[in-house]
Amino acid sequence: MAVQRRNHKLPDPASDDCVIQSIVDELFASYEELGGINHLEGINLPNRQTVEAITYDLLKLVFPGFYEETRLRSNALRYHIGARVSSLTERLSREVQKSLNYEREAEVSEKDSRKIVCDFLRCLPAIRSLLQKDVQAAYEGDPAAISEEEVILAYPGVEAIGVQRLAHHLYQQGVRLIPRMMTEIAHASTGIDIHPGASIGEYLFIDHGTGVVIGETCSIGHHVKIYQGVTLGAKSFKKDESGRIVKGGKRHPTIEDDVTIYAGATILGGDTVIGRSSVIGGNVWLLESVAPYSLVTYEEGETRTVSMVSDTEVGGGI
Amino acid sequence: MAVQRRNHKLPDPASDDCVIQSIVDELFASYEELGGINHLEGINLPNRQTVEAITYDLLKLVFPGFYEETRLRSNALRYHIGARVSSLTERLSREVQKSLNYEREAEVSEKDSRKIVCDFLRCLPAIRSLLQKDVQAAYEGDPAAISEEEVILAYPGVEAIGVQRLAHHLYQQGVRLIPRMMTEIAHASTGIDIHPGASIGEYLFIDHGTGVVIGETCSIGHHVKIYQGVTLGAKSFKKDESGRIVKGGKRHPTIEDDVTIYAGATILGGDTVIGRSSVIGGNVWLLESVAPYSLVTYEEGETRTVSMVSDTEVGGGI
Amino acid sequence: MAVQRRNHKLPDPASDDCVIQSIVDELFASYEELGGINHLEGINLPNRQTVEAITYDLLKLVFPGFYEETRLRSNALRYHIGARVSSLTERLSREVQKSLNYEREAEVSEKDSRKIVCDFLRCLPAIRSLLQKDVQAAYEGDPAAISEEEVILAYPGVEAIGVQRLAHHLYQQGVRLIPRMMTEIAHASTGIDIHPGASIGEYLFIDHGTGVVIGETCSIGHHVKIYQGVTLGAKSFKKDESGRIVKGGKRHPTIEDDVTIYAGATILGGDTVIGRSSVIGGNVWLLESVAPYSLVTYEEGETRTVSMVSDTEVGGGI
Repeated sequence: MAVQRRNHKLPDPASDDCVIQSIVDELFASYEELGGINHLEGINLPNRQTVEAITYDLLKLVFPGFYEETRLRSNALRYHIGARVSSLTERLSREVQKSLNYEREAEVSEKDSRKIVCDFLRCLPAIRSLLQKDVQAAYEGDPAAISEEEVILAYPGVEAIGVQRLAHHLYQQGVRLIPRMMTEIAHASTGIDIHPGASIGEYLFIDHGTGVVIGETCSIGHHVKIYQGVTLGAKSFKKDESGRIVKGGKRHPTIEDDVTIYAGATILGGDTVIGRSSVIGGNVWLLESVAPYSLVTYEEGETRTVSMVSDTEVGGGI
Repeated sequence: MAVQRRNHKLPDPASDDCVIQSIVDELFASYEELGGINHLEGINLPNRQTVEAITYDLLKLVFPGFYEETRLRSNALRYHIGARVSSLTERLSREVQKSLNYEREAEVSEKDSRKIVCDFLRCLPAIRSLLQKDVQAAYEGDPAAISEEEVILAYPGVEAIGVQRLAHHLYQQGVRLIPRMMTEIAHASTGIDIHPGASIGEYLFIDHGTGVVIGETCSIGHHVKIYQGVTLGAKSFKKDESGRIVKGGKRHPTIEDDVTIYAGATILGGDTVIGRSSVIGGNVWLLESVAPYSLVTYEEGETRTVSMVSDTEVGGGI
Repeated sequence: MAVQRRNHKLPDPASDDCVIQSIVDELFASYEELGGINHLEGINLPNRQTVEAITYDLLKLVFPGFYEETRLRSNALRYHIGARVSSLTERLSREVQKSLNYEREAEVSEKDSRKIVCDFLRCLPAIRSLLQKDVQAAYEGDPAAISEEEVILAYPGVEAIGVQRLAHHLYQQGVRLIPRMMTEIAHASTGIDIHPGASIGEYLFIDHGTGVVIGETCSIGHHVKIYQGVTLGAKSFKKDESGRIVKGGKRHPTIEDDVTIYAGATILGGDTVIGRSSVIGGNVWLLESVAPYSLVTYEEGETRTVSMVSDTEVGGGI
């Protein structure tokens, strides 16, 4: 019986199976040797796909009818919403528990995690009311916007701000990992990177948004407009005696009400305050405070225009 | 029968089920109170996932064989393509009808929507012919490109331009929401944000592309090259007597043939015309027209270089 | 029998089926006429979805336990990892064979492709060891980072660098298409575009990262920090006598050890060397080399601040 005999043969050391076995062996040796980048035995961390599904289910609760495959009809609506809230409570509680177990290096009870999640879900109506104002700000702020519905369906700023407002609530309840994962999911989808710690007023409008970065300790007032490529960042990092960067502290700017910041502007520093109703022109690089009602732009005449016959050495491509 | 009796008991007001019920009640109250961000009873809007699936199916028709999981063989090809066109006609007609019902605030017939879609699908060969030229422009314009096949498989600019050229046709037929959703799907995937209204000539090459923004009333000639982070935007928005932004009007620049715009340059204004064969250097900020064959760059000597012993206060991180 | 007779009737030339048929006919005519953008009969190219699945499976091997839906327990771990390595070997070998068949315009054997893949998989422990250092650099370099686990779960730079380090190994073994597809998959997900050809030292930290572009012939030392929107690109492209761009050659800068490059800076040219421990300030535009320990920033006083009563003409929005 040829088959059986083949099964009993030792694998040929030069055969392909042996190569795979040695690859696996070397990987295992590496898992055992190197700490810090695997979590096989340790605390069970929140899962990225699960947090992503939860995040989009939260957006569905916040904008009902906008992300649905099929039309929601009101007679069946209560069942749909009830089922979604119930499922979210289960799934988010489990991820919050993992997140807190890890962050606090202590066993957090299922009941405590569930309480945090229920408190969070209770805030959804308040978050909806904030987001309605953000949508209104986008519609009123962009001549190309044809309706508030278009804004919800096709403006990435709404998704990024929506997820940040949700994540910010969890962040305020002391959860750390999950809010960061949520805003990073929005960052991957929209190119807009807002830390869950940032404090943001009403009627924020971020247009286009690719490349926007808003830091953890930023404070943004009401009716602020921000365009693509704007950074609200840190000026420098304090280091301790051993040369290590000091964590924490106010490192990012304060933007007062009614400020507009155009594409590519960079504003840095925890002491930097942009006074109310100011306008920061595109590509401006700003490391200090400006008074209310300031207009900050480039000096004129800083570019050089020459006429040329043929293509000359300039760059930017790679 | 304990089970039955348990089923008859009223829920304990302090129990978890009651909490979920009150969360659902509060959400419903919020849905009823706040207008503008839900569409439960109103007009059925186009669905984002459906439009996304349609968009990628259109790309599969335009680049046959490139997005397929399995190899397409020519003897079965007509069946595949026929089935895809037929399914696309159904699905896109339904979404176009939703889009038009909403935009025109009137019932648009299935037949009219279907006619628009059939006219649109008839343009696919013309769009293919345009895209072939875009692919050629990328291959010839980038020293790192190894073949036209690599350009289709790995250059995000091709996806962004392809989707815009498709969306632009629908936009020209008077559909508004769906083309915007299509270009926003490409924006999320590529970081390149081109409004479906923009008018674009032949042989456009966008390299890398993250952060590129091209506005609704932009007009771009033939053989134009654009690098990452370039904005072709509006200078300011006209407001009416009540202070509201006026919608419409030519707000974005005109780029003539053979122009190259390097990374991070910003060109603004509806009256701004970049004359043919001009080169706009990286990071340039341009609010006015330049003559043909101009080279616009920064003045020299605007940066300061100092030697330092240790790390000094500079910024950009957050 | 009405049904049968209907089946025998010729389709009405004005009916909808005829329209679909003519759309399909026109598409086929276009497929036959235009070369270069379809691969129906030609060489079977690597498939994008397959390469995407392979890329994320490789990341799962490199960061075991981080991307898993369910917890990996050590007693079953060897089975999981073994199955994954075995499946990866099969799938990647098939795609590598397609890639090489196409690139070399010759039939490459299954065995040769498999050997390349096995050699590649053997490098995973070395790549893990590099990535552990990248994670450490991020944790130590960002005051907002709360742990190395958060860095892996929520910092897009880790994904982009991880994929590039994997792709770079395949690139060095002479595979071209698949490494480019891999880094482009990471680009779509993170906004960070690193060519697989770039040579990168240990402890690289890319923060936020949207809009970062690192070119094919870039050489980056150890302990380098790069922020969002940084371009390491080419200055200009050499053209041959017929005006075509010359492929190949060192076109991108060299960044020495311990250099920090802040948000939006652009550094261009194959001869440009940024000397060790230098700091390049945000938005700086740099076309030439700087000595070690240089600090390059904007000149002061280049922006203009005016007080204003009402909104004035400035721009950046579209």
